[in-house]
Amino acid sequence: MEKGGFAMIRLLLAVFLLATNAAAQPLASWNDGPAKSAIVGFVRAVTEPGGKDFVAPADRIAVFDNDGTLWSEQPMYFQLLFAIDRVRALAPRHPEWKDKEPFASLLGGDVKAALAGGEKSILEIIMATHAGMTTTEFERLVKEWIATARHPRFKQPYDAVVYKPMIELLAYLRDNGFKTFIVSGGGIEFMRPWVERVYGIPPEQVVGSSIKTKLEMRDGKPVLVRLPELDFIDDKAGKPVGIHTHIGRRPIAAFGNSDGDLEMLQYTAAGEGRRFMLVVRHDDEKREYAYDRQSHIGKLDRALDEAAARGWTVVSMKSDWKKVFAFE
Amino acid sequence: MEKGGFAMIRLLLAVFLLATNAAAQPLASWNDGPAKSAIVGFVRAVTEPGGKDFVAPADRIAVFDNDGTLWSEQPMYFQLLFAIDRVRALAPRHPEWKDKEPFASLLGGDVKAALAGGEKSILEIIMATHAGMTTTEFERLVKEWIATARHPRFKQPYDAVVYKPMIELLAYLRDNGFKTFIVSGGGIEFMRPWVERVYGIPPEQVVGSSIKTKLEMRDGKPVLVRLPELDFIDDKAGKPVGIHTHIGRRPIAAFGNSDGDLEMLQYTAAGEGRRFMLVVRHDDEKREYAYDRQSHIGKLDRALDEAAARGWTVVSMKSDWKKVFAFE
Repeated sequence: MEKGGFAMIRLLLAVFLLATNAAAQPLASWNDGPAKSAIVGFVRAVTEPGGKDFVAPADRIAVFDNDGTLWSEQPMYFQLLFAIDRVRALAPRHPEWKDKEPFASLLGGDVKAALAGGEKSILEIIMATHAGMTTTEFERLVKEWIATARHPRFKQPYDAVVYKPMIELLAYLRDNGFKTFIVSGGGIEFMRPWVERVYGIPPEQVVGSSIKTKLEMRDGKPVLVRLPELDFIDDKAGKPVGIHTHIGRRPIAAFGNSDGDLEMLQYTAAGEGRRFMLVVRHDDEKREYAYDRQSHIGKLDRALDEAAARGWTVVSMKSDWKKVFAFE
Repeated sequence: MEKGGFAMIRLLLAVFLLATNAAAQPLASWNDGPAKSAIVGFVRAVTEPGGKDFVAPADRIAVFDNDGTLWSEQPMYFQLLFAIDRVRALAPRHPEWKDKEPFASLLGGDVKAALAGGEKSILEIIMATHAGMTTTEFERLVKEWIATARHPRFKQPYDAVVYKPMIELLAYLRDNGFKTFIVSGGGIEFMRPWVERVYGIPPEQVVGSSIKTKLEMRDGKPVLVRLPELDFIDDKAGKPVGIHTHIGRRPIAAFGNSDGDLEMLQYTAAGEGRRFMLVVRHDDEKREYAYDRQSHIGKLDRALDEAAARGWTVVSMKSDWKKVFAFE
């Protein structure tokens, strides 16, 4: 009886989806133009039963970069802003930071000086703020921060500083049988606590950079403790490695915005059959930011040339998007 | 129009599933008894809408060990048999192996002597046979082996030496909204080429041990090359780490057969709400094998004690399973 009841619910759900799908306008925040046409054309081609480009649903894997592709990455990577907030919160427990870089500069409010040491400084800040607690504790810290911190320019929670057209694109792909994954240089555990709610992407479909964890017994219960040791950097040539480790098959569509995504785009393009590669270009200073070849964050240079040379879709935020953010 | 056509297909599919679900007998190869009752009771409890143990579909994560839980692991791990076959195939290209252990003994047919060096010998065999090619080439080698090699006792392809009741269990869980994962000490890339076809588990839901890979350009195309360097051992205390890395949330059900699964079972049990832990016990010498506390392969000792102490379900292959293999 339960079985029958369940099946009936499923059936009703299918009818309901049919009705709402027909009513909802996919890609509503996209202006008509070459980018939108290219997306729709690709999706139609790979989903048309019997068509020459048809791809079975199981192989409809789409991978999305996060920073600069799904949410903003200016004035600096949001995860770095989280880390800086953590340094401030932890400072009372670390009196030695007053005389120790990069912490001293950070606590003095001089972020630029703190980051002058480059990768080494950033790594020190990350390890001091991302390691030394259980995975459950870290998840709670991220959730609290996402709920309370505000973007300096937009005065919105960071998870509202996400691109509405890209969220519509994720939904459009899933409605057409795609499985959507994040493949980001950002921390995998920094994304998982909120991306399911915001992007509809479950934790098991998130690929990112990571530090090592170790199983320990605490109060007779097994917990995973985060260690101050890099495990994997999911950026540049690491992205295809991360894709292979987590997904185990080559995507047929890839979405990025910077040179850090180039290898992921190339790896996707190198598969057989119809493929789709898209680059989001930040050219809208008014509604968001404008930066590309010279930027320290989200530098888009080689990938822009390659997109032009190979006919990949380049999205102009300025002209292709009706709206950038839902809060506009 | 295409959208409408698609929706109609989905609707017809839902009606079809309704009909077949009602007709098919779940867990048909399981004898009525405490193990089957425990499984059905758990699934009913977590899927009953409004029930006190209800779990949302997204959190219905079930993890399965592979060797000894889904397929056999005797007379030795099948992946080791694959490696030995590869050593034989590669021997003409490695004349130096004639005088070098563990290869010399292996080629002389003395597997026992070859493995006398323990973990070190096994690692040498694995690296010599699993690294040095692209991921695509390795996938092809695995597929060829699975298609042609035969189990020494059952004279069947290795992917037929899988437990029919466990395959029914996987399907039963999925029919009830579970997402099923493999979490195995075996090589992730040794499983992915065939587990979707045999278990219905897609590559992105396979967690296993791995060696490192590296992106290289070959003939202008990006490929991933397998390196002779360990990346991750997904066994014992590694299993919760692998679960966390790949799945990112704690399973509510775990299925294993040996002490290598103990930490995974404990980690699953330590979550809040209703949980299900099951241990497959190999006690059927006639239809399969009988081994537990003293076995070198798939040793079941501490996990058996803990299962008894904590009321986890222990499956007797002999008395709980009507059939072990489909080919019987």
